[in-house]
Amino acid sequence: MTQINASIDVDQRLYAHDIRASKAHAAMLAAVNLISADDLKAIETGLDQIEAEIKSGQFTFSADLEDIHMNIESRLKDLIGDAAGRLHTARSRNDQVATDFRLWLRDMIDTQAHILADLIQTLLNQGETETQTLLPGFTHLQPAQPISLAHHLHAYAVMFLRDLDRLGDVRKRVNLNPLGSAALAGTPYPIDRNQTTKALDFQGVTANSLDSVSDRDFALEYMSAAAICAMHISRLAEEFVIWTSPQFGFATLSDAFSTGSSIMPQKRNPDAAELSRALIGRIAGGFQSLLIVMKGLPLAYSKDMQEDKAVTFQAADMLSLGLQAMAGMIGDMSWNRAAMESACHQGHLTATDLADWLVRTLNIPFREAHHITGRLVAHADEKGVQISELSLSDLQRQEPRIDDSVFSVLTPAASMASRISAGGTAPIRVAEALAASRKTLPELMSRFGGKG
Amino acid sequence: MTQINASIDVDQRLYAHDIRASKAHAAMLAAVNLISADDLKAIETGLDQIEAEIKSGQFTFSADLEDIHMNIESRLKDLIGDAAGRLHTARSRNDQVATDFRLWLRDMIDTQAHILADLIQTLLNQGETETQTLLPGFTHLQPAQPISLAHHLHAYAVMFLRDLDRLGDVRKRVNLNPLGSAALAGTPYPIDRNQTTKALDFQGVTANSLDSVSDRDFALEYMSAAAICAMHISRLAEEFVIWTSPQFGFATLSDAFSTGSSIMPQKRNPDAAELSRALIGRIAGGFQSLLIVMKGLPLAYSKDMQEDKAVTFQAADMLSLGLQAMAGMIGDMSWNRAAMESACHQGHLTATDLADWLVRTLNIPFREAHHITGRLVAHADEKGVQISELSLSDLQRQEPRIDDSVFSVLTPAASMASRISAGGTAPIRVAEALAASRKTLPELMSRFGGKG
Amino acid sequence: MTQINASIDVDQRLYAHDIRASKAHAAMLAAVNLISADDLKAIETGLDQIEAEIKSGQFTFSADLEDIHMNIESRLKDLIGDAAGRLHTARSRNDQVATDFRLWLRDMIDTQAHILADLIQTLLNQGETETQTLLPGFTHLQPAQPISLAHHLHAYAVMFLRDLDRLGDVRKRVNLNPLGSAALAGTPYPIDRNQTTKALDFQGVTANSLDSVSDRDFALEYMSAAAICAMHISRLAEEFVIWTSPQFGFATLSDAFSTGSSIMPQKRNPDAAELSRALIGRIAGGFQSLLIVMKGLPLAYSKDMQEDKAVTFQAADMLSLGLQAMAGMIGDMSWNRAAMESACHQGHLTATDLADWLVRTLNIPFREAHHITGRLVAHADEKGVQISELSLSDLQRQEPRIDDSVFSVLTPAASMASRISAGGTAPIRVAEALAASRKTLPELMSRFGGKG
Amino acid sequence: MTQINASIDVDQRLYAHDIRASKAHAAMLAAVNLISADDLKAIETGLDQIEAEIKSGQFTFSADLEDIHMNIESRLKDLIGDAAGRLHTARSRNDQVATDFRLWLRDMIDTQAHILADLIQTLLNQGETETQTLLPGFTHLQPAQPISLAHHLHAYAVMFLRDLDRLGDVRKRVNLNPLGSAALAGTPYPIDRNQTTKALDFQGVTANSLDSVSDRDFALEYMSAAAICAMHISRLAEEFVIWTSPQFGFATLSDAFSTGSSIMPQKRNPDAAELSRALIGRIAGGFQSLLIVMKGLPLAYSKDMQEDKAVTFQAADMLSLGLQAMAGMIGDMSWNRAAMESACHQGHLTATDLADWLVRTLNIPFREAHHITGRLVAHADEKGVQISELSLSDLQRQEPRIDDSVFSVLTPAASMASRISAGGTAPIRVAEALAASRKTLPELMSRFGGKG
Repeated sequence: MTQINASIDVDQRLYAHDIRASKAHAAMLAAVNLISADDLKAIETGLDQIEAEIKSGQFTFSADLEDIHMNIESRLKDLIGDAAGRLHTARSRNDQVATDFRLWLRDMIDTQAHILADLIQTLLNQGETETQTLLPGFTHLQPAQPISLAHHLHAYAVMFLRDLDRLGDVRKRVNLNPLGSAALAGTPYPIDRNQTTKALDFQGVTANSLDSVSDRDFALEYMSAAAICAMHISRLAEEFVIWTSPQFGFATLSDAFSTGSSIMPQKRNPDAAELSRALIGRIAGGFQSLLIVMKGLPLAYSKDMQEDKAVTFQAADMLSLGLQAMAGMIGDMSWNRAAMESACHQGHLTATDLADWLVRTLNIPFREAHHITGRLVAHADEKGVQISELSLSDLQRQEPRIDDSVFSVLTPAASMASRISAGGTAPIRVAEALAASRKTLPELMSRFGGKG
Repeated sequence: MTQINASIDVDQRLYAHDIRASKAHAAMLAAVNLISADDLKAIETGLDQIEAEIKSGQFTFSADLEDIHMNIESRLKDLIGDAAGRLHTARSRNDQVATDFRLWLRDMIDTQAHILADLIQTLLNQGETETQTLLPGFTHLQPAQPISLAHHLHAYAVMFLRDLDRLGDVRKRVNLNPLGSAALAGTPYPIDRNQTTKALDFQGVTANSLDSVSDRDFALEYMSAAAICAMHISRLAEEFVIWTSPQFGFATLSDAFSTGSSIMPQKRNPDAAELSRALIGRIAGGFQSLLIVMKGLPLAYSKDMQEDKAVTFQAADMLSLGLQAMAGMIGDMSWNRAAMESACHQGHLTATDLADWLVRTLNIPFREAHHITGRLVAHADEKGVQISELSLSDLQRQEPRIDDSVFSVLTPAASMASRISAGGTAPIRVAEALAASRKTLPELMSRFGGKG
Repeated sequence: MTQINASIDVDQRLYAHDIRASKAHAAMLAAVNLISADDLKAIETGLDQIEAEIKSGQFTFSADLEDIHMNIESRLKDLIGDAAGRLHTARSRNDQVATDFRLWLRDMIDTQAHILADLIQTLLNQGETETQTLLPGFTHLQPAQPISLAHHLHAYAVMFLRDLDRLGDVRKRVNLNPLGSAALAGTPYPIDRNQTTKALDFQGVTANSLDSVSDRDFALEYMSAAAICAMHISRLAEEFVIWTSPQFGFATLSDAFSTGSSIMPQKRNPDAAELSRALIGRIAGGFQSLLIVMKGLPLAYSKDMQEDKAVTFQAADMLSLGLQAMAGMIGDMSWNRAAMESACHQGHLTATDLADWLVRTLNIPFREAHHITGRLVAHADEKGVQISELSLSDLQRQEPRIDDSVFSVLTPAASMASRISAGGTAPIRVAEALAASRKTLPELMSRFGGKG
Repeated sequence: MTQINASIDVDQRLYAHDIRASKAHAAMLAAVNLISADDLKAIETGLDQIEAEIKSGQFTFSADLEDIHMNIESRLKDLIGDAAGRLHTARSRNDQVATDFRLWLRDMIDTQAHILADLIQTLLNQGETETQTLLPGFTHLQPAQPISLAHHLHAYAVMFLRDLDRLGDVRKRVNLNPLGSAALAGTPYPIDRNQTTKALDFQGVTANSLDSVSDRDFALEYMSAAAICAMHISRLAEEFVIWTSPQFGFATLSDAFSTGSSIMPQKRNPDAAELSRALIGRIAGGFQSLLIVMKGLPLAYSKDMQEDKAVTFQAADMLSLGLQAMAGMIGDMSWNRAAMESACHQGHLTATDLADWLVRTLNIPFREAHHITGRLVAHADEKGVQISELSLSDLQRQEPRIDDSVFSVLTPAASMASRISAGGTAPIRVAEALAASRKTLPELMSRFGGKG
């Protein structure tokens, strides 16, 4: 029973937030004359000492005392006697744990916002030097059209900016104060919830005491945002695994981010990319775990909810690690530009450009232009050349009105430069898009706290 | 192959959004002189006719044409010939499907916001007449403290208001225009993405063409919000299943929302509540499904993404159904107020009030007051009475300073009335909270479109 | 990089299995003359010492050495020098980790089989004394028909027997030897895989070296069986939460399995039941986690798979804890038989019996009998009595052929006794079913190893 | 309410199983004299007619009649009058639906076993002609050691054989007869459950009536097996997506299994492989859905369980489609053997062979041999050659005892041929392994019914 009931192994991580919340609660109790100034002082001193003991590793945690809250309270009683008992006036473990967990998650979100910002900046930095670097753009892992490496990296920057935006939205709903909801019904003591709200930098108070102690939406919402972010990481990591295979050879990982093999001396394995790709498993599983736990629980607090912290802590730690690994990997990456460009000269990547030329120059409906191009691709394949290497007479056999101005659109570089629609891969557009993302970043970051 | 490849059974639901987007695209093509005014007119007339044919059930869908986009395009060619081919200028199925799906989801979100608002209003309406109705507040499904029915219903209103807020945040990221991203790299045609943005009521354009065609965050984020909302439904439905069991007997479902048994004539089964409780399964599973699909997909579009719509459609339909069922059920519910109040007179629900009285009146530290109260509860149990039924001398045997003013806090009604902290169950506080929620509702609704 | 790459915190738990497998591998290498007898002796002595060091807590694990395999190998080199390097002949970390993990899981399955058997026996023991104890059988949480407590407990015994059967099937596929697959392609050394198979008590060798190092089906299959078992626990735990609420009052948890409240002195909370109910979250999440990790991984080993152990370890530990908590809870439970029986006298629980009597005695088609009974239930409700309390004339007003022999089927005890179909709730049938389950248990257990 | 309650859209698929089970039930009722021979005959004739009506599309399903069972029963009453009412004697919709669903799933499992067998045979057939075809074996998507294409294909055959074995285990637990459990408690009628068991080809009767009507383990277990199988498909599909990219170019999909692009005329997209890769999403999500639904449901039947069929039907249909697509794709695939072999001559794939040679020939401990080889690989990289292209003097500079017999192990073909351990890639071993798998297949298939 002790084994299944105790959570101290997991929730001791909340100690600093528990102490901070207790201090704010005590100060409020004193301000509304529920405890004396002396009691307040004793409580503050005692809590400071406990925090120091925990930080220095001198605190002895006990599973018999179940959780971090009781461990601290018990120690406080040892240190200051009766006043410790007064700290629990007008609160319950139910609102206490909700408060601590929200404070912890808010800090974690702030920390991760900064980690995400670092990753985004790494992508933007790399992008800015690569707007002219040709890369085959793939769909279905088949080469489709020439793009720039910068455009590709920017696509991920945009995803991570969305993650940051989502985290900001999550933070709004995390950042509310449940303290004062007591066990479930509120309290008859004349407490001042606004005072603890200010002291703890919350944005407002929660609206209903029953909901306050049995709401774990904030953790669920965080984990869903984390899972989507981890999905982005999995996609980028997959690209790096593919790009660093010799068959692609588009990039080379630094020694710091690759490992050898115990049996095959020649290997350079992208272990960090693979582990980053994998972390979506645990994070998405964590979201499901907590959702299952919460399913069908009547109001108000049930002990099932104690499962909330283990899965959230794991998800958050893994996400931080993955984001940092990706930033490190990208910052260190060697791009094999020659291989990327060379790959643009295979697979008729400018076939669409030919079709578009037929539409624009000869006013052929797009669908028909598409068919003509298809026949020219087949013809080039028969001859074993790229469509850009067909002769004018070859081209004219399919469509007599083609003239040699067509060749100007058939090089990968011309193709890339031509795609000037907003959000397109033309270097000028990508440069603008990178600049816009760089401008958005501080705006998004203004919703978060400091690095903590 | 046709069978696994075709999506027309699922995506024909997008027809109106596909036609709307095609009209906006055509109008833009004409405005920038990529197609003629005559072509535009032919396209518009043709699309109108197709929309009418589909609405009236006269359109023949073909699996050989794979999806809704090709079915419409093919029919358009039948109707207007070459001009149909020009409609596909400067776009691709990749950006077309992303656009249609976003338009559909935006509409669905708007519709569900109104459904959620109805449910919230039903809860607030019911709450407003029940602020004095006593109900045992439970934790761990053990009676804990007296609360009001209004307070309990309001807790759910608060959850659903959070869902609404979350949907509003999702909508922001849904409501961006990917049209003009073409297959993946943008397009060389001089298109005007701002014009289609305005025509389709999008809030802005997407920033990167690769991301635009391979981003399904919006559907994932919607489904995670839907899953959390379905979790709230599951909790409320669980309460109704428990409350309508004869052992609780707190509420009676209307005939419309209960069913009989094929073999047991006396049964009144809460089928609608059970089905509502269950729908979190499909919705959470749907989120998981799409997340798994997206895991590890390199840029840009891969066919895997075609799975996005089936799971999103199912999740959305189930959520609408569940929300409407809950609103109907609550609107029709008979509350058995006598049973609720009677249950407040069992289980020493005012034990906390006694402890609080000891703290406030006799200045006993909370933890010690808690222990005294525990002994009094045990004593009452031995005598087979409630603590409120103990005599003054019984009480004084544990703590001599207790006087008969204590009895004023030991009735459920007094207990409920005393919990005046913000968000607490005191009728005055609940009335304020209901009013605040009522005020918040239109503010939240202002982020959504009309009922559609 | 070290932080994301190292797995030693998790996989050190495999140390005993790693050492066992290494000894078996070394003995085989010696038997086929790949290493000398002296080397073998040195390896065995060294590994014994390392095992002793780890057991006694004197071993220093290093994250720089990544995992348990390298930590042991490195220490072995310190202890015995060059011979340590020969141990790695004809194997790779890829087949080594697969072997260790399978050995660990086989042991865990054996341990859990015994824990499951304890729980099943507790249910059967309790059942055997309760075949005459009346309990309302519920559907939709509405009382439906009288059953016995024994019948109810036996339903869970049957579920857990199925879990045991499933674990036995999983064990078959866990218990195969991948050692000798080397990195991925097998090895040119003349090894004898049958020898290590016998030494490690495996049932056979794996069939394909590529599959051997990249197969994690066994862990997935274990976790899906664990998730289904945890679902059973969640149902039983839910029953206990409901049954121990005062509104039901069917059972009382022992002090050992209930806890008090920090603020409400009168509470007896079913914390252990709630925590047991919740553990399906983490286990089901773990299955999803590993499935996501494995999705789309090309052959052979990828580092993503390193995630396998953390989720499996967590799932297994939680399941063991939950099963033991349930056995403890049930063994200690006080059944409130009077409350259960009393509940059988409400809600017309014998209405079906009346309908059946009409069918059998008066040869009325079932559907019509159902309707007649429905009218009688409604009539009893109007009078505020149970159908068993209606007078003969009341009954005859709906169906004149009813005579007073009908009353013999209208008591709960008669109803229960009458349901004599195989698997039914009649005491004689339940006694037989309990006996059959008791007989099945050792048969199922014969597929597992000892308590370990 | 009708909308949320009705399941006829989903469960009409059970019609043939419902009719079959009703006939078996009626025959048993007649055998034990609960209905007359005339009634039996009328019921059989009526049910035959209904089956014919449904098959021919002439049956009108009604949502007001909720489900397939009531639709058939109602029509039967139209056709044969009172006798229809007698069919419902001694059964309930609760045991009826459990019976129908088990019958359906058993048929589906049998069908899928045959589909799986086809896929396995396709892999074995392809494998048998490719035991000498060189392919780089990858770990971490980095080329590791030369293997054969046959060895690679056989790895998947082994996975699918495991799936088949698992399906066989699932079938055991599906194939039990719940009929006669009635609503929850059994029935007082003297029914013969063994007769219906035989008539419906079940293997035995379920042991407990409460469990019988509220058990959905069989569907869960099926879906977990399906999810693991879908994971295997996702891995193989991922390989085909990678192998058919021009950068790898190891294989070419047939026209039947690739598609073009609406905008890029040159594309050959592996759409079927991508869709097959994606289907794990829906299947794993379906398992999760049903597990969530079942979590925490007290005994016995609750309406939540109605969700079981939709998710199981979807998962099963998708799995069948995916397995068939994979078999078609592989059967049609062109292997580009020259590209595979050529890739074996890059990346020092025989480095392990060199290390092994040093161990065996010069008796160097493996770990030291590994380091020597690492230095030789680095030296070869500096010179821009493969290790097999280094001169003897180059080799001797790192280890003077190397002689020119070393070159015989440095070719990919020699490396492949050398790996003769059981399960290894040597052609002789792979041929044996293919033969063993071919022999296992009919043994596994003997546990399933016919193609149906």
